[in-house]
Amino acid sequence: MRNIRLTIEYDGTDYSGWQVQNKPRTKTRVNHPKTIQGIIETALKRILQEDVKLIASGRTDAGVHALAQVANFKTNSDIPVVKLRSALNGMLPDDIVVKNIREVELDFHSRFSAKSKTYQYIILNSPYPSALLRSKSYFFRFPLNITLMRNEAKCLLGRHDFQAFCASASVVKSTVRAIKRLSIKELPGYRLISVEIEADGLLYNMARNIVGTLLEIGRGKIPEGYLKKILASKNRKLAGPTAPAKGLFLVKVKY
Amino acid sequence: MRNIRLTIEYDGTDYSGWQVQNKPRTKTRVNHPKTIQGIIETALKRILQEDVKLIASGRTDAGVHALAQVANFKTNSDIPVVKLRSALNGMLPDDIVVKNIREVELDFHSRFSAKSKTYQYIILNSPYPSALLRSKSYFFRFPLNITLMRNEAKCLLGRHDFQAFCASASVVKSTVRAIKRLSIKELPGYRLISVEIEADGLLYNMARNIVGTLLEIGRGKIPEGYLKKILASKNRKLAGPTAPAKGLFLVKVKY
Repeated sequence: MRNIRLTIEYDGTDYSGWQVQNKPRTKTRVNHPKTIQGIIETALKRILQEDVKLIASGRTDAGVHALAQVANFKTNSDIPVVKLRSALNGMLPDDIVVKNIREVELDFHSRFSAKSKTYQYIILNSPYPSALLRSKSYFFRFPLNITLMRNEAKCLLGRHDFQAFCASASVVKSTVRAIKRLSIKELPGYRLISVEIEADGLLYNMARNIVGTLLEIGRGKIPEGYLKKILASKNRKLAGPTAPAKGLFLVKVKY
Repeated sequence: MRNIRLTIEYDGTDYSGWQVQNKPRTKTRVNHPKTIQGIIETALKRILQEDVKLIASGRTDAGVHALAQVANFKTNSDIPVVKLRSALNGMLPDDIVVKNIREVELDFHSRFSAKSKTYQYIILNSPYPSALLRSKSYFFRFPLNITLMRNEAKCLLGRHDFQAFCASASVVKSTVRAIKRLSIKELPGYRLISVEIEADGLLYNMARNIVGTLLEIGRGKIPEGYLKKILASKNRKLAGPTAPAKGLFLVKVKY
């Protein structure tokens, strides 16, 4: 038995997210949603001629992209990893690319072994949208006070209960997470603003809810000093809206 | 009569280029190719309720993108330009955006008044392709010697007969053009190489043929000192292949 680890880049635009969805069986025809996991598992099964269960560092939602998602699977096949990478990339569609593939210890688990994950959110802060970046950024036309956003965001650093930024439908044991780094940068040229969040783990929609709230702060809709109160309230309703999926990228998983 | 000037960004991926193509009429059904010009003219006609002829700074080929194409048209309508911009952007698909619109002197002509055009070509020089940049860059896997490319490219600067870099089928009065600037940069992060060419005008496929030739130099297929000879030969067959359209961006037109 071998444990194979993949680093995967994908354009989430045309997918219903990472995870294969087990829909309830109905008598009517079901259009199975296209997922990144499903597409890669199908390709692996064809190449390895055995059933494969792919475990990712975490699910990404429909429309969310990844520069370096990490996933692993166990196999009895002795195919060399270099061969497997070319076979996979030859079979996968253009919007999914396996950048790296290697054999790891049997106890490596993409999700449980992860020490931190970094997400980057791209905001196009411009009076007009962009044709070229339309599926890779969130077009936000109201002028943003970046310095204010940066100062306010500081209270999110460290270990907190992030329930106020967690999708209300989600069921988890604990909503306590630690944000190790949160940096807001203006990228040169294109009026692009990047929000990078590194955390030991992220709750469902946490990155997008934090960004949505920071945008309300930046445009002056949520007053100075209020973010601290939102965090302490643990009340999702007080935080800002969920920023759209298409601006979000999983950029790094640390082990 | 007013003369209206547009600055347009577009993602050329799904278009047969800028220019409306007048196909010969046949008895069989013709799928009219979708062009940027055609789409914008149709939107303008609907808004202005009059026929509009849109003139661009130059055609771009199928798959070529633009950050700031310039085009103008004459109209009898007295619609305010701000209103026209919102009406247009409301009607245009997401992959075409009018960034700027203003009234200009009646003698302004997008093509004839242009002093220079700048094209940027993006090369992904990596061992594996990119899912996210697949339609906005040329994936070139062979390692490139950038310093050599930069040194060799110097001989292209200034006024020359660029016939060796002009698509052989093209019919033009003169193949003499002046390259004002040619810069080759490594963009941080993603193993991206940008080739920027500013010229008083570019022959058909000239930017893509120059890039295709520089790539052969960078990977060592065309020997040092040979580019000068290719230029002097005026022979298209001696130059490198035409680099694919999807890596090319029209980034600026100067007037």
